[in-house]
Amino acid sequence: MAGVHPATASRALNPRLPGRISAETTQRVVRAAAELGYVVDPVGRSLRTRRSATIGVLVPDLLNPFYPPVLRGVERGLRSRGFEALIASTDNDVRRESELLEVLRGRRCDGYLIATATRHDATVAELVRSGVPTVLVNRLAGTETPSVRSDDVRGIGDAVRHLRERGHTRIAHIAGPAEISVSATREEAFRAAVSREAAGADPVVVRAEQFTAAAGEAACRHLLRDRTITAILAGNDMIAVGCYAALDRLGLRCPRDVSLVGINDMPLAEWLRPALTTVVLPAEQMGAEAARLIVERIAEPDAPVRDVVLPTRLVVRGSTAAARA
Amino acid sequence: MAGVHPATASRALNPRLPGRISAETTQRVVRAAAELGYVVDPVGRSLRTRRSATIGVLVPDLLNPFYPPVLRGVERGLRSRGFEALIASTDNDVRRESELLEVLRGRRCDGYLIATATRHDATVAELVRSGVPTVLVNRLAGTETPSVRSDDVRGIGDAVRHLRERGHTRIAHIAGPAEISVSATREEAFRAAVSREAAGADPVVVRAEQFTAAAGEAACRHLLRDRTITAILAGNDMIAVGCYAALDRLGLRCPRDVSLVGINDMPLAEWLRPALTTVVLPAEQMGAEAARLIVERIAEPDAPVRDVVLPTRLVVRGSTAAARA
Repeated sequence: MAGVHPATASRALNPRLPGRISAETTQRVVRAAAELGYVVDPVGRSLRTRRSATIGVLVPDLLNPFYPPVLRGVERGLRSRGFEALIASTDNDVRRESELLEVLRGRRCDGYLIATATRHDATVAELVRSGVPTVLVNRLAGTETPSVRSDDVRGIGDAVRHLRERGHTRIAHIAGPAEISVSATREEAFRAAVSREAAGADPVVVRAEQFTAAAGEAACRHLLRDRTITAILAGNDMIAVGCYAALDRLGLRCPRDVSLVGINDMPLAEWLRPALTTVVLPAEQMGAEAARLIVERIAEPDAPVRDVVLPTRLVVRGSTAAARA
Repeated sequence: MAGVHPATASRALNPRLPGRISAETTQRVVRAAAELGYVVDPVGRSLRTRRSATIGVLVPDLLNPFYPPVLRGVERGLRSRGFEALIASTDNDVRRESELLEVLRGRRCDGYLIATATRHDATVAELVRSGVPTVLVNRLAGTETPSVRSDDVRGIGDAVRHLRERGHTRIAHIAGPAEISVSATREEAFRAAVSREAAGADPVVVRAEQFTAAAGEAACRHLLRDRTITAILAGNDMIAVGCYAALDRLGLRCPRDVSLVGINDMPLAEWLRPALTTVVLPAEQMGAEAARLIVERIAEPDAPVRDVVLPTRLVVRGSTAAARA
């Protein structure tokens, strides 16, 4: 009906197929398709193109408030490029991750976004080795794989400087669980910032067993047996929520007795009382960037690997104040 | 290799296909398949069976803390039955819902779980009319469609009785947005409970424009121009979070001046200070039940339609106390 070769019609209706067609031809084909009531059949297309137009997305825990905004960014970014996300959650379980990845691979996803966060991970290493397009979110597995992460080092430096400027010298960090890759990044950044911004200060670090309020409360109560500490950088906002509860139990007030800084800026952070000073992670933007990278990767599997680092910033709210005299 | 007809082998390897095979035959086929290294090809299977083994799941907003646990229940429930969830979020936009449903239908999902929550919805009505297996979560669209919901009426009755027993006579409700179906259910339940549990009391209802803390704060500040109110039932926990902030701004204390009850029991509810008394919605269980129903529906499209109602309960924490004298 458009007077073109079927292959040309196919290209005009599927921007992801290779080959250029003039705007005029495309318009003619699209108009004919509309008149004929043509609807793309993704299963049929998948057979011809060996493409499923789906991206498998693995997240460790939908209940961690960091991930919903990441997924919103991923979904919007993928959909605007003609892909859909097949989302699966591993419940922070490495064995589960390997099972789910098998399931997703069985569905012939065109690529994978891996936001699961363990440091050493044979499943992901094998996926990357197999040459399937993969992008890592919020974790780093060497320079072989494109990745998107936030500049936590910068944000943590800003947080420590902010506390230092308000007279805090005994600043502690409640690190996240050791097996999660961001825990190590943040702990190192904290130690570096203290030695840079607060020369002579002795960085105090304790560890929460999970990125949860309950684990944060337990770690904070342990930490505050040392009453010289006047400020805490929590490993994330959920740990900070636990710190508020620990301070209450110990009869201490925030920020009068102890200043508190989180990491993430989850949607509820500004609603805590006092509102939480925190390092803002650009979660939705990270998702959007990951979507862009994976689609690029599928189009050009041999393009140079990129490691995209997105900026963070400190937002100062009511949970930080001058150190008590 | 197993000495059986290909159709028998196919049935033995795919429990969802119709027809019975003896345990012994199944074992022989499975063993032969393992020796041959046979792996199911879902795309190939989808062509033969017209089944994709995926369920499209529409949620209105992953940032609403009610939905991540629902999705966890859905994913676990589907996966244990050999299905995967294709999750998409509509951002509370009816037009977006219709687009996403088109996308999902293009992928030939075997069924749909619809947790988007508007009351009047042509897209969902059409989906149901078309005979595609569909289960509604947390909304009701007449008796033609299986659904899973929570017994909010019971939980809200418990909440009002709890407040009444503590001497509250001026109890207000901050309802959710009018276009969301649970808003109406909860408001009606509140009015009925007040007239039953607190005869003679005049139920006070204001409306929050969204199920968010910001909308809750605005509605609560408006509400508390009436200083005779001593207790508030918030339309959900996020609205309750906004109430804490409004009380702070007005120089009122919870629960000394105003008692506060939420609905949901989101993961952070117990960490608010004071911890939030709330109606527990069985979110993960609702997801699991929806997964079970949709798989049943696919297996038996003509089975009687069921409306599953799961129990709620009130959890009493620090945000409710005796009414001030």
